[in-house]
Amino acid sequence: MIAQCSIDEFLQRLASVDATPGGGSAAAIMGAMGAALVSMVCNVSIGKKACEAAEQELKAVRAQSETLRLRLAAMAAEDIAAFDSLMAAYKLPKESDVDKARRADAIQAGLRLATAVPLDCARACAQVVELARRASEHGYRGVISDAGVGVLAANSAARSAALNVFINAPALKDRHFAQSSVAELETLLSWCTLESEAVYALVRKKLEP
Amino acid sequence: MIAQCSIDEFLQRLASVDATPGGGSAAAIMGAMGAALVSMVCNVSIGKKACEAAEQELKAVRAQSETLRLRLAAMAAEDIAAFDSLMAAYKLPKESDVDKARRADAIQAGLRLATAVPLDCARACAQVVELARRASEHGYRGVISDAGVGVLAANSAARSAALNVFINAPALKDRHFAQSSVAELETLLSWCTLESEAVYALVRKKLEP
Repeated sequence: MIAQCSIDEFLQRLASVDATPGGGSAAAIMGAMGAALVSMVCNVSIGKKACEAAEQELKAVRAQSETLRLRLAAMAAEDIAAFDSLMAAYKLPKESDVDKARRADAIQAGLRLATAVPLDCARACAQVVELARRASEHGYRGVISDAGVGVLAANSAARSAALNVFINAPALKDRHFAQSSVAELETLLSWCTLESEAVYALVRKKLEP
Repeated sequence: MIAQCSIDEFLQRLASVDATPGGGSAAAIMGAMGAALVSMVCNVSIGKKACEAAEQELKAVRAQSETLRLRLAAMAAEDIAAFDSLMAAYKLPKESDVDKARRADAIQAGLRLATAVPLDCARACAQVVELARRASEHGYRGVISDAGVGVLAANSAARSAALNVFINAPALKDRHFAQSSVAELETLLSWCTLESEAVYALVRKKLEP
């Protein structure tokens, strides 16, 4: 599993000529960092006198951000598996008509996976953006900047994951799935960007001396 | 060294109640991921027929992105050290006047480091944004989305690192250093955001079927 290798090794493999890990895995890890930072804001704030009134809210946010942190970290490996299955499909034999039909089906299955996985990643990142908003509103001022970093990471992760949907969806024969995936993503990205800019501005305002 | 721990462990420590690693280290790792993805685009493109004319340019970009990848990964630990030195300064005794003067000096030195390190991180991330622009212009179409992910990571990393400058600079007694750091950062962030949006748009345009 990619998330078990060291950061230095991950960075080295990301930089290498190999196709995986690539942008899709980097997106998932960025999203997981966003979720982790939301958890951190909650962990520091819970129990603090200044955050007493929001304790239940902060605990609810933390429960979700911890689930998303683990989910997004696992998605780095799912992204690699999806890419590999698509590459394997392209390499299938295409001699006979039976071969060709089998290969075409495998490519479509691979494309579907390579669209669905980053779409799921973007959805999870949008949830992190929403949690970062709540953490930035109720969290302890001393760690509020971490909610700001978290929201930027989650938004960039969503927009990064989206690129793989934009690459793979056009070649899908299931036009309904392709078009609804892209449409959902466009709405989601617009919301994420507006919301993350609002959260970043709120954090900067709270940091003013 | 933080970059030697596994991604899962880094995420867990990021999420924990401990102050470090926090947003500053996450910013450095995000920036390093951006640099790594620029390197990947160059590594895949160099040697490809379609990128022959840009080979020298791609090699020059890769040399810089690899230097920045290693530099930014190391900055994750520097950020922790800067934060720890500031926290240690706050904990110094403040009984006598001599104690107080020594503590005040140590706090100022800590604040200076906790401003200079994230400022350096933001500068390095701005360089990654510039390299991602060149990689997106000359890189192989098959990996162009990775330049898009790289530029988003680098821009978010710069804006994330900036938050620590905004936190620490106001308490600096050296007003010249404080104000010039913030002013430099504001210019740098404006440029980074405009440039990264332009690169992301270029990448999306190149991905159109």
